[in-house]
Amino acid sequence: MKLMDMRDTDFGERFAVILSRGEEIDRAVEGSVAEIIADVRSRGDQALLDLTRRFDRLETSSVAELEVGETEIDAALAAVAADDLASLRHAVERVTRFHEKQRQQTWLSTEEPDIMLGQKVTPLERVGIYVPGGKASYPSSVIMNAVPARVAGVREILMVTPTPGGEVNPHVLAAARLSGVDRIFRIGGAQAVAALAYGTATIPRVDKITGPGNIYVATAKKLVFGQVGIDMIAGPSEILVINDGSGDTAHVASDLLSQAEHDELASSILITTDRSFGERVAGEVERQLGLLSRESIARASWESYGAIIVAGSLDEAVAFSNRIAPEHLELAVADPFSLLPAITNAGAIFMGHWTPEAAGDYLAGPNHTLPTGGTARFFSPLSVDDFVKKSSIVCLSEGGLKRLGRDIVRIAGLEGLEAHARSVSIRLDR
Amino acid sequence: MKLMDMRDTDFGERFAVILSRGEEIDRAVEGSVAEIIADVRSRGDQALLDLTRRFDRLETSSVAELEVGETEIDAALAAVAADDLASLRHAVERVTRFHEKQRQQTWLSTEEPDIMLGQKVTPLERVGIYVPGGKASYPSSVIMNAVPARVAGVREILMVTPTPGGEVNPHVLAAARLSGVDRIFRIGGAQAVAALAYGTATIPRVDKITGPGNIYVATAKKLVFGQVGIDMIAGPSEILVINDGSGDTAHVASDLLSQAEHDELASSILITTDRSFGERVAGEVERQLGLLSRESIARASWESYGAIIVAGSLDEAVAFSNRIAPEHLELAVADPFSLLPAITNAGAIFMGHWTPEAAGDYLAGPNHTLPTGGTARFFSPLSVDDFVKKSSIVCLSEGGLKRLGRDIVRIAGLEGLEAHARSVSIRLDR
Repeated sequence: MKLMDMRDTDFGERFAVILSRGEEIDRAVEGSVAEIIADVRSRGDQALLDLTRRFDRLETSSVAELEVGETEIDAALAAVAADDLASLRHAVERVTRFHEKQRQQTWLSTEEPDIMLGQKVTPLERVGIYVPGGKASYPSSVIMNAVPARVAGVREILMVTPTPGGEVNPHVLAAARLSGVDRIFRIGGAQAVAALAYGTATIPRVDKITGPGNIYVATAKKLVFGQVGIDMIAGPSEILVINDGSGDTAHVASDLLSQAEHDELASSILITTDRSFGERVAGEVERQLGLLSRESIARASWESYGAIIVAGSLDEAVAFSNRIAPEHLELAVADPFSLLPAITNAGAIFMGHWTPEAAGDYLAGPNHTLPTGGTARFFSPLSVDDFVKKSSIVCLSEGGLKRLGRDIVRIAGLEGLEAHARSVSIRLDR
Repeated sequence: MKLMDMRDTDFGERFAVILSRGEEIDRAVEGSVAEIIADVRSRGDQALLDLTRRFDRLETSSVAELEVGETEIDAALAAVAADDLASLRHAVERVTRFHEKQRQQTWLSTEEPDIMLGQKVTPLERVGIYVPGGKASYPSSVIMNAVPARVAGVREILMVTPTPGGEVNPHVLAAARLSGVDRIFRIGGAQAVAALAYGTATIPRVDKITGPGNIYVATAKKLVFGQVGIDMIAGPSEILVINDGSGDTAHVASDLLSQAEHDELASSILITTDRSFGERVAGEVERQLGLLSRESIARASWESYGAIIVAGSLDEAVAFSNRIAPEHLELAVADPFSLLPAITNAGAIFMGHWTPEAAGDYLAGPNHTLPTGGTARFFSPLSVDDFVKKSSIVCLSEGGLKRLGRDIVRIAGLEGLEAHARSVSIRLDR
């Protein structure tokens, strides 16, 4: 962790080190991922079986056997403690209710009787959700990806997850059932992404692939983009907390650590107008680090990519935050709504002292799949929008075409596109 | 052109040839584009000057000189014929009015007093529009990219366009001025995309790059995706016309040719339930081909990727169209609205006999930047949505956190994320 003052002359330089963590996809990874994709495209199921044997040490004679059966899901559901199931159900309910507000309607304007224009909103037909396996197997990821798809009206939701041992985490299976996932396959890595993008004899091709994954999965998603839709290219997690000296230092410290525990590349930053508050938070972080079972991860993250920054004013802090475009932004200030209009770049904004970022990870309602690494400049949280597409609607009557025809013909002429012009004039010149 | 019947046993096989036109980005192009991007990232303006000299044969001593000055734009505007200017202005007005209907609002739900949730909509700060130079220099492209950005509230719209002779088409400059473009640079190719994505001393970094381009531009956009937003990866244009035997064969033929004249890879397909109508359209296409100055392009497209398909019913035709997911879909039938609900995949839908696709290219209002090559399965027309991003808003009171806290702590526990749980319990356990 570095304690810095924004007004120090070397601030820019020192802070640049923290920003440098963004991992770029390197050409070597890209090469091997491209090979895996080509293999799955050409050999289909057989490639999938071979690669699953090689990477996940899972031996089956057909891809169909890699599908998780209904009885297996039933068993998982039965094995999950009732209280845990109730919490997951609560999450599904709240996330559903929030995402329902994102639904967009097909519309048609009738203000000009001879020219009706509109936009048709249609759910994607089939989507694939990637769920990491092993230690990072999170039921909340399933909920946050499947629920918006289901709310959007997607007809079939596939889920893929690598299972080095052959077993899928029961909470993940329960979350899949509660969120409306239709089919689950025990496949992962670039090969699963390729199978979803191009289809195999057993795995149907999807229209979009969402969900987090390691560098191979992220690279595969980037390479198949255009063949299918993808959500975004996610990097390590981050939090930025803006503070005005109000609130409890222990609370702020706990929020910083909730990101730091994710992985060594996570970044937790506090920017405060109150140096003494900042110093006390630093002490609290140290104290709470010692209480964590994931201490070594959280400590590595905090040492490398943690920072406490002193700002001259809240305006300065907000301007800085907008430049960083953090995935998670906490406004741990007395009057958070007064800052809201000025926030231009942030994945999710957590308002005030009673809104820890963790509330957004699970239960409040908004999606926890958020743009990282400064991409909140242009990416948005995963949403129902990601699971629909739009078609423009244009409907002219004869009168409408007459009204527009002359100018269409003229612009087509400027562009040298004679057949475009003729398709209008042939209708009007009679 | 091939005349086929959907019910023929070899239909699938014969039609596959037409679908095969999609060009994939090959690794060789990707390699040279990656080099250009790396060069611009490391050498900035100097690389841009060198590459512009090499590819566009344009010699200047600074990138600033590559900017098109206000006086040059004024002169272009003065040089454009008054009628042409009026037509362009009409297009800008109609496109603006349509896109204004796409604006989304920031919202905040207050139905639970202790938990407010919402979504903030914020325009992108700065975007770059790529406009191809030379023969494919279209003022309508400028309008269709700049207007949605301006309607969205983007603060600065940059435009880049290669100018092998140093001159920008005056209609393009006029369209830029009318659509609210802020700065124009005479740069193009992968180097322009790289400059916009990473910024140089002279070219400011943008948040998103939109607009059409050749394979180098498309590849560059794909490679910088994630560093900036991009709109979509566009391929050659296409039209599919669904017909029920009603309407005028000459009109349908002219619509097919309005796509075919774009380029040799364009694809024009008629699917009709009336074989005789189809045969007469084939004759009309031949006749009209002879009238076109771009005959050779249109003929090459029609020979290779044109088709007239006979369907057993309109339902079959619609199902086929959904499978193709055409960029432009004309419902040249007596009752187009009866088919609308069943259309699931199409970039834009042109309703009835008085709505030639060309109306949508210029003036009706909707965007002409549409998903090609079957990507209407998951991509949408370019819209105001492309020029905003969203941030989730979460605001809990103490009571709200109390209400959610138990379940948050429980799910964090399932995921082994102790610090997440602590950030909640530290606030509630007092």
